[in-house]
Amino acid sequence: MTHYSDYALTLPPIDAPDEALRAALQAAIDDKTKPLGSLGRLESLALRIGMIRGETVPELNRPAIIVFAGDHGVADAGVSAFPAEVTAQMVLNFLNGGAAINVFTRLHGMALEVVDVGVRAPLPASAGLVNCRVANGTRNFVEQAAMTPAETGAAINVGIARVLRHAQQGTNVIGFGEMGIANTSAAACVMSRLTGLPLDACTGRGTGLDDAGVARKRDILARALAAHPGASAPLDVLATFGGFEIAAMTGAFLAAAASRMVILVDGFIASAALLVAARIDPNVLHYCVYSHCSHEQGHRALLAEFGGEPLLALDLRLGEGTGAALAWPLVASAAAFLREMATFSGAGVTNASA
Amino acid sequence: MTHYSDYALTLPPIDAPDEALRAALQAAIDDKTKPLGSLGRLESLALRIGMIRGETVPELNRPAIIVFAGDHGVADAGVSAFPAEVTAQMVLNFLNGGAAINVFTRLHGMALEVVDVGVRAPLPASAGLVNCRVANGTRNFVEQAAMTPAETGAAINVGIARVLRHAQQGTNVIGFGEMGIANTSAAACVMSRLTGLPLDACTGRGTGLDDAGVARKRDILARALAAHPGASAPLDVLATFGGFEIAAMTGAFLAAAASRMVILVDGFIASAALLVAARIDPNVLHYCVYSHCSHEQGHRALLAEFGGEPLLALDLRLGEGTGAALAWPLVASAAAFLREMATFSGAGVTNASA
Repeated sequence: MTHYSDYALTLPPIDAPDEALRAALQAAIDDKTKPLGSLGRLESLALRIGMIRGETVPELNRPAIIVFAGDHGVADAGVSAFPAEVTAQMVLNFLNGGAAINVFTRLHGMALEVVDVGVRAPLPASAGLVNCRVANGTRNFVEQAAMTPAETGAAINVGIARVLRHAQQGTNVIGFGEMGIANTSAAACVMSRLTGLPLDACTGRGTGLDDAGVARKRDILARALAAHPGASAPLDVLATFGGFEIAAMTGAFLAAAASRMVILVDGFIASAALLVAARIDPNVLHYCVYSHCSHEQGHRALLAEFGGEPLLALDLRLGEGTGAALAWPLVASAAAFLREMATFSGAGVTNASA
Repeated sequence: MTHYSDYALTLPPIDAPDEALRAALQAAIDDKTKPLGSLGRLESLALRIGMIRGETVPELNRPAIIVFAGDHGVADAGVSAFPAEVTAQMVLNFLNGGAAINVFTRLHGMALEVVDVGVRAPLPASAGLVNCRVANGTRNFVEQAAMTPAETGAAINVGIARVLRHAQQGTNVIGFGEMGIANTSAAACVMSRLTGLPLDACTGRGTGLDDAGVARKRDILARALAAHPGASAPLDVLATFGGFEIAAMTGAFLAAAASRMVILVDGFIASAALLVAARIDPNVLHYCVYSHCSHEQGHRALLAEFGGEPLLALDLRLGEGTGAALAWPLVASAAAFLREMATFSGAGVTNASA
């Protein structure tokens, strides 16, 4: 356990997987009735799943997506194609089952949970909504830090608590999505400050800005970064530029890894939250599967920071955890071939002489 | 209907989809509660599914994979890392549920049918095996044509008949897989002769040849191509270099398109069969979804012939229809978002001002 007293936060320790299992897993994969290596990247995925779960016949149970929602003060600066009110509207859409993430989780048999970590507008009490609101949206980080340290710690703790609850219910594979108008702006600043990459490499079209909109967004974010020269430690960068949903995801990544879950990493925002988590504890990356490479500028470079090879490249840029939900059937397929396929000796199939 | 009397064959007509529906489909996709275009390639996939099915709320039913098995005389020339006996052994593995395609179809809720179109070794009668054997394997095409025209027509008719049977059972989305030791050799010759691409661009490692093995395979195939200078019409090329499972797939593609099915195109062998089908009737391509780009040399160039963008790129090179089965959840996801997602007006979500 590591304590961060300014943030009123205690983070769980994350063990690296046991390397002793690697050879046995590779042998199990190679003995399946198929030409050596012929399942390609599904084989390295199966190896990773086995390493994460610590067994050669891993079983993935109760797959889940948690969508964390929060609003961003910087939305008022005009960095998004959509107004901030859309965050709350989309949360209602999630609760009514009409968003893309509802469709994909229903279709692929995943549990879906929606958590209000800090939406600005009031939301009605609903059986489908987990109310963990830390505040009614963040402050505009062009002027002041988006969150206080205490708020940041509270939001991280929301993510940790929700993941631990899913762990109790039997979940060992999980993905995190987000809803928060202007959160590509928050993610771009977090990414640029933590990686040192120029803001241009981190700033994209978000929900659909045109060239002039992107230029305006980049100028606003450049001012914001210049206004906070002292923020450099991971939690400080998160507090200054992040948001409630991003902080909750950071906590969720750390808790999922500590719980030895297979983590389905979604797109640009989720990856920015993972970047913070990885700077706090690099061992979190052992538990990650990179679902897809988003169309959003900056995501490919973020994946490169992690050494992560995305499973899908479909030019998605929606968020909500949709990339993670779409990658889940591939992850399930990798675990299933490792569990269920016959072996050469068991099935009486002649192996190659090579 | 087009009649090919030498081949004792009558092929069904294939209509192009109705272009009048395209604008309505695009409008339906754009009205879903997501930023414009944010589901990326899943949106063009949904458009294609809607065009194939001729409706803006397409429903995909009873997804199925048919695996066609056959042996190749050219296997005796030493073109594969595995001996010909493995074809029959793998068919038994399919019947016992232990192969990769069994695992993936079970997991993703697809019907699986295994058809013996021309395996060399005897196979026991089994409830799980459809016996449509045309002959006990093909002839070695280094010396003579692999199949007679009548055999070729019979194998094509097997594929047509199996697809029409699935159509009667309600299937409107289907993929075709194959098992046949040495069939990358057959596919490479079919591809090279029909496209005019050099044999080097069409010849790969198959189930795992090393560099010397590939060189030997290429030399054997070059001799085979030189031995049959007159084979140039699609059905003649298929008869000369193809195989029973490849011919059955050619018929299956044509019948599936004529039945307005969404076709999940698997890897290199399936694509070679589709190449023959497309040279017979180019309209077949309107019904195709390209599941993946295989690791096998030549597949990318074959996909380019079709103008096909693969959904997955996982370095698979197994065949059996595994790529099609792995792509099915993405195809189902595309149809589902088009059917089930809420619209901006219906959900009370503010659209972008842009």
